[in-house]
Amino acid sequence: MLIVMNYSATAAEIDDVVKAVRNMGFRAEPIPGGERTAIGVLGNEGYVDDAVIRDLPGVQEVIHVSKPYKLVSRAFHPKSSVIDVCGIKIGKGCRPIVAAGPCAVEGEDQIVRTALAVKAAGADLLRGGAFKPRTGPHTFQGLREEGLRLLALARKESGLPIVTEVMSPDHVERVSECADLLQVGARNMQNFDLLRELGRSSKPVLLKRGMSATIEEFLSAAEYILTGGNPNMILCERGIRTFETAMRNTLDLSVVPLIEELSHLPIMVDPSHATGKRSLVPPMVRAALVAGAHGILVEVHPEPEKALSDGPQSLTFQGFEALMGDVRRLRSFLGFE
Amino acid sequence: MLIVMNYSATAAEIDDVVKAVRNMGFRAEPIPGGERTAIGVLGNEGYVDDAVIRDLPGVQEVIHVSKPYKLVSRAFHPKSSVIDVCGIKIGKGCRPIVAAGPCAVEGEDQIVRTALAVKAAGADLLRGGAFKPRTGPHTFQGLREEGLRLLALARKESGLPIVTEVMSPDHVERVSECADLLQVGARNMQNFDLLRELGRSSKPVLLKRGMSATIEEFLSAAEYILTGGNPNMILCERGIRTFETAMRNTLDLSVVPLIEELSHLPIMVDPSHATGKRSLVPPMVRAALVAGAHGILVEVHPEPEKALSDGPQSLTFQGFEALMGDVRRLRSFLGFE
Amino acid sequence: MLIVMNYSATAAEIDDVVKAVRNMGFRAEPIPGGERTAIGVLGNEGYVDDAVIRDLPGVQEVIHVSKPYKLVSRAFHPKSSVIDVCGIKIGKGCRPIVAAGPCAVEGEDQIVRTALAVKAAGADLLRGGAFKPRTGPHTFQGLREEGLRLLALARKESGLPIVTEVMSPDHVERVSECADLLQVGARNMQNFDLLRELGRSSKPVLLKRGMSATIEEFLSAAEYILTGGNPNMILCERGIRTFETAMRNTLDLSVVPLIEELSHLPIMVDPSHATGKRSLVPPMVRAALVAGAHGILVEVHPEPEKALSDGPQSLTFQGFEALMGDVRRLRSFLGFE
Amino acid sequence: MLIVMNYSATAAEIDDVVKAVRNMGFRAEPIPGGERTAIGVLGNEGYVDDAVIRDLPGVQEVIHVSKPYKLVSRAFHPKSSVIDVCGIKIGKGCRPIVAAGPCAVEGEDQIVRTALAVKAAGADLLRGGAFKPRTGPHTFQGLREEGLRLLALARKESGLPIVTEVMSPDHVERVSECADLLQVGARNMQNFDLLRELGRSSKPVLLKRGMSATIEEFLSAAEYILTGGNPNMILCERGIRTFETAMRNTLDLSVVPLIEELSHLPIMVDPSHATGKRSLVPPMVRAALVAGAHGILVEVHPEPEKALSDGPQSLTFQGFEALMGDVRRLRSFLGFE
Repeated sequence: MLIVMNYSATAAEIDDVVKAVRNMGFRAEPIPGGERTAIGVLGNEGYVDDAVIRDLPGVQEVIHVSKPYKLVSRAFHPKSSVIDVCGIKIGKGCRPIVAAGPCAVEGEDQIVRTALAVKAAGADLLRGGAFKPRTGPHTFQGLREEGLRLLALARKESGLPIVTEVMSPDHVERVSECADLLQVGARNMQNFDLLRELGRSSKPVLLKRGMSATIEEFLSAAEYILTGGNPNMILCERGIRTFETAMRNTLDLSVVPLIEELSHLPIMVDPSHATGKRSLVPPMVRAALVAGAHGILVEVHPEPEKALSDGPQSLTFQGFEALMGDVRRLRSFLGFE
Repeated sequence: MLIVMNYSATAAEIDDVVKAVRNMGFRAEPIPGGERTAIGVLGNEGYVDDAVIRDLPGVQEVIHVSKPYKLVSRAFHPKSSVIDVCGIKIGKGCRPIVAAGPCAVEGEDQIVRTALAVKAAGADLLRGGAFKPRTGPHTFQGLREEGLRLLALARKESGLPIVTEVMSPDHVERVSECADLLQVGARNMQNFDLLRELGRSSKPVLLKRGMSATIEEFLSAAEYILTGGNPNMILCERGIRTFETAMRNTLDLSVVPLIEELSHLPIMVDPSHATGKRSLVPPMVRAALVAGAHGILVEVHPEPEKALSDGPQSLTFQGFEALMGDVRRLRSFLGFE
Repeated sequence: MLIVMNYSATAAEIDDVVKAVRNMGFRAEPIPGGERTAIGVLGNEGYVDDAVIRDLPGVQEVIHVSKPYKLVSRAFHPKSSVIDVCGIKIGKGCRPIVAAGPCAVEGEDQIVRTALAVKAAGADLLRGGAFKPRTGPHTFQGLREEGLRLLALARKESGLPIVTEVMSPDHVERVSECADLLQVGARNMQNFDLLRELGRSSKPVLLKRGMSATIEEFLSAAEYILTGGNPNMILCERGIRTFETAMRNTLDLSVVPLIEELSHLPIMVDPSHATGKRSLVPPMVRAALVAGAHGILVEVHPEPEKALSDGPQSLTFQGFEALMGDVRRLRSFLGFE
Repeated sequence: MLIVMNYSATAAEIDDVVKAVRNMGFRAEPIPGGERTAIGVLGNEGYVDDAVIRDLPGVQEVIHVSKPYKLVSRAFHPKSSVIDVCGIKIGKGCRPIVAAGPCAVEGEDQIVRTALAVKAAGADLLRGGAFKPRTGPHTFQGLREEGLRLLALARKESGLPIVTEVMSPDHVERVSECADLLQVGARNMQNFDLLRELGRSSKPVLLKRGMSATIEEFLSAAEYILTGGNPNMILCERGIRTFETAMRNTLDLSVVPLIEELSHLPIMVDPSHATGKRSLVPPMVRAALVAGAHGILVEVHPEPEKALSDGPQSLTFQGFEALMGDVRRLRSFLGFE
């Protein structure tokens, strides 16, 4: 930690900061500069809460060298983590996986047909929402309990493991009965009670990046789950909110190699929500794979024009088959099959 | 609703869209233009879900004229709402109120002393967090249950009504026992299970704008609560996330008059979280009041330099007294006292 | 400057960085920490270019304590600057001024009538664009030379000094003949050849903040002009680009008190471009004044519904008169008249 | 164009809007809805300036169906454009090209060695800045005239065509003497006098997207150049400014396929400026190629640790050779060689 003093800070103020640092049990090293003095803080292991310091007279700024997360960081855990979802391995060195399915479970026929179709085309996991977070209360909110039942049925029929969203701490247990990978949606990335509850679970968790979450906040949210005792974490980039409105969100693909550097956790990419536009999904899937993503999430619907949500970004069965052709060629290019 | 066709859409495609609109029970009015055809949708009352249309062949874009919210809109409810919190009126035409107190309840002495001090200086409500959403798991997370008990004590000692955050649906009942105004924090603005639960309550709710929430999403979140049956809603602008990092957030003051146009709900402003910097709080409080805010939230701490969170943006007792002088002069300037 | 090493940096790498710092003529002070080493750089006066350091093996990050600007900073020049435009004083301690007029000069009748009307209502300066930056080439681009002639005429008729935009280095001389305050538009804030040319002038300059410029970049752009030898600088906040599309831009009012802390230069506010909506202009003008702005820019047009640009954000003569009533009451409230 | 009226607009107001539309020479078609009336505007060919309409009493919003650009749009010009730079073809169906070189020309040895090295590794163009836009005035601003001379020398030695930035209208002629492709930097994307001057040239232009430019603004800027008479345009995505500060900018790769849909112009990608970090450049180059980019720009420096600008994002010669291996394998995968 480095404490930067105001250019007009007095010797007494500098002295008080030095004392406060020592009271916290650390060493303080004043570094006088041309314009102002800075004070280095030594001896801390990990992140120091700066509340006591940041506000002393004469302090201009406190700069953290350590990060607010530790368990998720590669510095702390150099070996890449590989997460197992019903025998499917997700992470560095493994064949990148594909989770596919509709935005929302809408009925038995829709979800079972989709499950069989994406399975036949080569998907590894079935995605589908039973509980749906929707901007306004006057649109379809998901089949909820009935949706979970249908997902279980689709799993039985297709043999595909299920990834589905859990929106509330008190739903974790119930959703875990039918899901193999528990998704935390972008709007809930900082629903800390939910993260804590998932930390107490042993189910694998897929954490989507919040719409305006920095990478530091993203990794800190994952840190809640690892701190709670659940190491089965997969991160997922799904586009961030920017000034650009031509796409639904802006896919931030450079986080894929950056997270590879900062963390040992696997990272997947969801180009359907990121772009919001069917025609942009295949090029962004290809881009994600060569950028190093450990898996992708794609929305597929038997009749996108009748989907109750996210139709415009859903692939048809035919579109998904064509995409899987690309995926196979790229896996082979990348040395995976 | 207006459906814009591709410049190359065929007559058959236009025809299919017209039929789909009629199947939804609405009238469709094709409008041929120089470059492309558009189709007007008539006869709808309120927002129409465009899922069935947006994806038909030849459709380029669907433009909504109606908004996804209704109960919160001024069009639907022209008279400004005034919300009553323990006899204190908040809304258009009422004296703008001041809620003050620490970011987090840290102990009995801290919260009771602050309650008495802000009461003496003229605050209307006491704010203070028992449940604290924090970016990472390794910092202070609030006193939780014990914090609620201390807030109840501070209310008893000072006579001030309490505003405090509720983070989870299953806490609503418990927090309601001690809070007079239930705050939904920025990170939970789209925690829809929480919003639904608050819709079933009759307690007044203070809904903070999400960090990257558009005004349409902000009003749609409030719509959840009104739709649930709870009309006691107050909105709160607390700064949005932008590229600028010199302040903690960017205070978007122009939403104050804009929300006045779009909605009948009262709107408050929180300059402490918006700026993150003590010296910027008083000018932004003054600005909020003359822009038409119906109330302000300000962080105050007996010893900001020892605060466990948000110290740098908290006012001292003395700073708050000085601010209340400004507030009184501005209330008088605005004709309120 | 603080150099943060990777957690795995070797002693040899640390040593190389220390040597490189010494070769630049500064002192280097290694600060070993729990997780990693940092190296303090001492003895520099002002900003150091980190190009030579940032890339050495083992270096993770370089943190600057000094800022890339100096002449504009309050640290360097503690006394607030007051700029004189034809006898009108702009800056701290002076009565906040009002510049008003149309977005673009459209004809003799329009600009002269507006000049006389805003003069009568109490404006201090006449604004109006002769050279107009427009997003696309197929809309009105300004009257250019003829616009300058008409501005000179309006000045003669009304006695008001003129503020108008200059878009190119080779226009500075010509525009200076008729303008009393040279405006650099948001899109040109980093047109460095233009800034250099204005640095060679002695005319006062009004520098608008770029649409996505940080405060550091904004002050660095001003630094170009002061470095060139022209101290007559006024800054202007005009809204920044964010994800919110309900307003044209997001007015960042908190920069007013923040720039007061960081710089000695005066700061004005343009709520017309910031909000893009006539009804939001008066509340934002009031907010800007109590936040400490040294002046405001407002668009006024005799018939906004016929304006060739920015009609929806322009006040009518009547609207401007009403606004000036507010301005006078607030000036009096603030102790200025 | 669709004109949306207020929910409380009177019949007389609707009538006035209809008349105004007819006065412009278009047809007006009122579309009464459940909550409000909208008015369709028919008969326009291309974008209509809404200044006269947008401000009439009762008008709430004007929605444009046509876009503010035409010459650059695929609707107007369905066949993809291929641009020729000294015999190198850039555009759809052509082998994606690589432009490489230092951020800035720093001296004869540096630029000539780099030119020979990137040529040997397989680059198609040499990049290098003579005129450098820099945030503050106290850092290296480029060798300017001398830089142009050295670029000409490097071209002669290596045989590589040159791409370099032009910052001012009055430099276009001089820079054209030594450059084969004229770059407009991100900060100058809306320097309209520069765009107009380039429209009068016949040299190919590489237009970088502005830091906060929407795709509509980006294409509108290109429209200036085509409107001026120069059809030799290449677009370049180089990262946009978002809230995320972990990378220098956020690379918006999804614009590659989106621009392919909207425009006939070629699009290149610059991952060096987008990410600001050497280790992220190769994965983003790979991602850009499979997303459909027609070329890439990469910064290469003989000794990045001594570069006067952008060292941390520059590849070494060895790093560039390795990257070209990837590029060749991907070109082959994509069917280009």
